[in-house]
Parts: sequence; C-alpha cells; structure tokens
Amino acid sequence: MKIVESVPNFSEGRRKEIIEAIVQEARTLDKVWVLDYSSDPDHNRSVVTIAGEPKAVTDALFNMSKKAVELIDLRKHRGEHPRMGAVDVIPLVPIMGISKEECVELSKELGKRIGEELKIPVYLYESSATSRERENLSEIRKGEFEGFHEKIKLPEWKPDFGPDKVHPTAGVVAVGCREFLIAFNVNLGTDNIEVARKIAKAVRHISGGFRYVKALGFKLEERGIVQVSMNLTNYKKTPIYRVFEVIKLEAERYGVPIVGSEIVGMVPLNALLNVADFYLRLEDHNPNLIIEKKLLDTIAKEVDGE
Amino acid sequence: MKIVESVPNFSEGRRKEIIEAIVQEARTLDKVWVLDYSSDPDHNRSVVTIAGEPKAVTDALFNMSKKAVELIDLRKHRGEHPRMGAVDVIPLVPIMGISKEECVELSKELGKRIGEELKIPVYLYESSATSRERENLSEIRKGEFEGFHEKIKLPEWKPDFGPDKVHPTAGVVAVGCREFLIAFNVNLGTDNIEVARKIAKAVRHISGGFRYVKALGFKLEERGIVQVSMNLTNYKKTPIYRVFEVIKLEAERYGVPIVGSEIVGMVPLNALLNVADFYLRLEDHNPNLIIEKKLLDTIAKEVDGE
Repeated sequence: MKIVESVPNFSEGRRKEIIEAIVQEARTLDKVWVLDYSSDPDHNRSVVTIAGEPKAVTDALFNMSKKAVELIDLRKHRGEHPRMGAVDVIPLVPIMGISKEECVELSKELGKRIGEELKIPVYLYESSATSRERENLSEIRKGEFEGFHEKIKLPEWKPDFGPDKVHPTAGVVAVGCREFLIAFNVNLGTDNIEVARKIAKAVRHISGGFRYVKALGFKLEERGIVQVSMNLTNYKKTPIYRVFEVIKLEAERYGVPIVGSEIVGMVPLNALLNVADFYLRLEDHNPNLIIEKKLLDTIAKEVDGE
Repeated sequence: MKIVESVPNFSEGRRKEIIEAIVQEARTLDKVWVLDYSSDPDHNRSVVTIAGEPKAVTDALFNMSKKAVELIDLRKHRGEHPRMGAVDVIPLVPIMGISKEECVELSKELGKRIGEELKIPVYLYESSATSRERENLSEIRKGEFEGFHEKIKLPEWKPDFGPDKVHPTAGVVAVGCREFLIAFNVNLGTDNIEVARKIAKAVRHISGGFRYVKALGFKLEERGIVQVSMNLTNYKKTPIYRVFEVIKLEAERYGVPIVGSEIVGMVPLNALLNVADFYLRLEDHNPNLIIEKKLLDTIAKEVDGE
C-alpha cells in the first residue's frame, strides 16, 4: 500500500464540537487513519494528522474541508496565528511507496476539487507551486483573510484553482506536497545564549548553513541551559546526523558540551534509519528489514485487499 | 494490539508442496501475518516468520505444527542441520505491548497444547526453560531425533509437556520465549584474519566480552577483507552501538579501519532507535513518535476491532 500523510490546519481551536465534527469526517472513511489532532485556543487553530492510502487521504481531506466551510466563519475568527482560510493549509507528505511527483499530482487533483466543488480559491505551494513566489507558504498567507480580497485581484496572485474571488466565509486555501518537517533541538551545556545563537547561524540556510535547516537560539530558563531549535525541512537532503555533528563541532570550539537533543512531534522511520546508517556505517539501507515496517506493509496490504 | 513474533523451524526444505501447506495454515487465520519464509535444501529445513496478536500467533503455530506432523516423517529426513523434530523449534519473541513474562506464559500454553493434542514431547527453552540445562537449545537438541529415544528416558530430560516417549515420526520440539536475535556483522579494512579473530574474542561473552554477544572472525575472500560476524542475543541489554564502538576501538589499536557493517535479516525498530538515541543523545526515547510505528499501532487497533 502507498501511504501519504497530511496535516491539515483548520481555523478553529476553541469550540470542541466543531473540531470533533471535522475530525469525524476522516474517521468514517476506509484506508485512512487519524494519527493525532490537537488544538490551540490562543492560536484558535487545530492541526490534524492523518495518513493512509492516497485516494482515501484526499477524500478525507476534501470531506474535512467541506465540513470546515460549513462550520467556520472567518469573518468572526480571531487568533494569534496568521490564517487565510477556514481550512488554512493542506500539506501532503509522501511516506511510503509514493514519489514526490505522484504526491504533487495528488495535491493538484485535491486542489482542483476543492476549488471547483467548494468554490474556494486554491494556491498550490511548496513542491506543487506553479511559481517561485508560491513555494513559500508565508508569502502566500501574507495579508491574511482580510487582505486577500484585494491581493487576489493582483495578476500574480490569481488562484491556481477555483474562483477568482475570496470565499466569503472560508477565505482561500494552500494545498501542496512537501517533505516531512522534523523539529529537532540540540541542548547545550551553557547558559550563554550567544553560543546557541552563533551555532544556529552556522547551521541554518539563511546565514550560510545547510539548505534545509531553519534554526534559532533559545534559553531554557528552567534548566539554565541554551538550545539550538531547528526545523529540518528535508531530512533526505539535509540529514539529522550531519546537522548534529556540525553543531557538536561548533560547540567544541566554545568548549561547550552537548547535553542532549530532542525530536518534537513525529519523525519518519527513514530519518532515524539514516542516523543508524551513518554511525554504524551500514552497507545496506533497507527499511523493510525493520520488523515493524514489514508488519505495517503486510497488514496494510491485507487492509488494501491485495 | 499486542504483537508477538515467531520463527518456527520445520524439518523440510526440499518439497515445496509440503512447505506451502504448512505456511498456508498461518495465512488462513485473522490477526496473524506471514512476514517471510525461506527453505534451505541442504539443511532440508524451512524457517517461517510470522507475527500478530498473541492468541492468533499461537493458534497459527499449533495449526502449522499439526500440519508438519501430518506431512513430515523424521525417520526419512536427512539434512545438514541438526534436528530433533518435524517442527523442530518454536521461539516466541515479544515485539510490542507484551512483556517477557506474558510471552513465557504464552509459550507454556502453546507447549501444553502441542504436548497434549499432538502427542509430541515438548521442551521449554530459553526464558521459558524449567532448568538451567534447558535454556540452551543446542543442549536440548544434542543427540537429535535418533538419539532422543534413549535421551528422553533420563530423568533430567523428562519433557515439560506431552508423552514421555518420542513421537514416532515427529520427534520432539522445543518451545520458548526469547529475545529478538540480531545478526550484526562488522567489516574491517584488512585481509588479516587474526585481527577479526582477536576482535571477535574481545566482544564475545565466552571469552570475556559482552554477555549477549556471540562472535567469530571470518574472511570475506571476494572483497579481500575480514569480518567480525555476530549474533546479538539481547539487544536491550547489549545494544548494537556499544558493541560497534568497542569493535571500532579495538580495530584502532591494530590501525585497521571499519569499512562497513551489516544487519542480516530482520531487526526490531527499537534496536535502531537505540542507535539514534545514543549518537544523537536523544532525551526522550519514544518509538510512538515514529510515524510508521504510529500508523502500525493505529491500523492494528482497527484490525483488532478496538
């Protein structure tokens, strides 16, 4: 079975009954599973993690979006997190047995359907983007729901699918294929924030570091230490271990030890297998040798009726 | 869902129709999955890997054993591998959500059923063993099928379950709970077999090394290098990375580089997660953060009707 993951973001983080009604849409379909969901009342936003067979996942995403359009009115929405739609963004992430190209195709099919059937303007982003400006989600979202009524009139912001007018209550939505995003933090045995900041600069793309690393230095007040907090946006091209080893090297020059690290949220098996590969110098990288992966494939095949 | 793995060994590695008939018994049950099977004609032996819900796995093992008793006659069996039964050994391995104690209990239930219903003498081995002598499978198997007619009469070799007489065609069987066995080899950049042998001695239990390591030095003639070939019999207590690092240290003193390593056959996710944990100094070891593991749990729960 091919497996795609998606973490759609909805602009409702307070009214439980609405969040539940949206999640329920994914639960009622075969071959798609709700792995997790969480809401932030301050952001007034919910993030749902689903995964499954590609067609089932896009069906679930469509049904969830439809429900969100019914139940969320952005004209009354207030929250700390920037947002432009009732369903704000729908990333599709290839997990197993599916290429980036297939995943991009999938996002376009879903975007077309949302545009045509739900009458919401759709912007393809990340790997699915139709222009450079649309690759970056925050570029698309700039102006938010309120500003989009004007922004959408600009020729460079004509939607990829759907009407040329903002949906009156549901706004617009970004749909796209992207790589799995890993939140990886490294903790340093010092209370000197400058060390964390310098190391963050050393590894992050924007200041000359690795292409797929975003990084900031933080203080962990309670522990009296500092942290390099990162998003790895493509672990296949910028693997965890390489970033870790460079941080270790840079920390050494300040005489600062690495006291630990953490992965926040979920991580694909392959990202960890890469770590074992590197340090053990494994000659054969085969995730199917991992018994849980083999079991997943076997059960998934059965569920798939193969 | 609790998951148990088993790799029963059957004394038939040549006649395909018999092997298929045995494997088929595991395929027809719910909540148990055949992950792999392979036969060795020289050994005249087949190894099947199944995994699933504990009760379903033991049902499958019983049905496979019953079929093996019907179809295999040890009086006519010749092969290079030592053997004492038509179904020779049934290891049960706890994979997920099940303790060693529960797994031992499971092996006893299965042993009792095989003894009583199939009239085969059963020896509990490894963690399930009822005496020190029975922990080691090769100790039990000594004498093989032919010698067991006498051996079984010795008071110390009275079976744990079943009749006190060898089954005329199916012999005896060992059933027990054990940890996952990892075949891990490290390749050294030298053609000097002595280096591999010395390092094997350094890490293996029998000569003063790690408790759960068996190791030998080999020549890889084609590549012109040598290999430390190992079985790690308890990766939880003797983790892969620790053995690897000691081999690296010992190799250094001979000025020999490590050119690679390999895991032969399957490996539990946790064994690799341990590696990532160690090298990245992860502060939180949580396999459920791995998306494939989460997906497996979620799908398995659904299959389980929870």
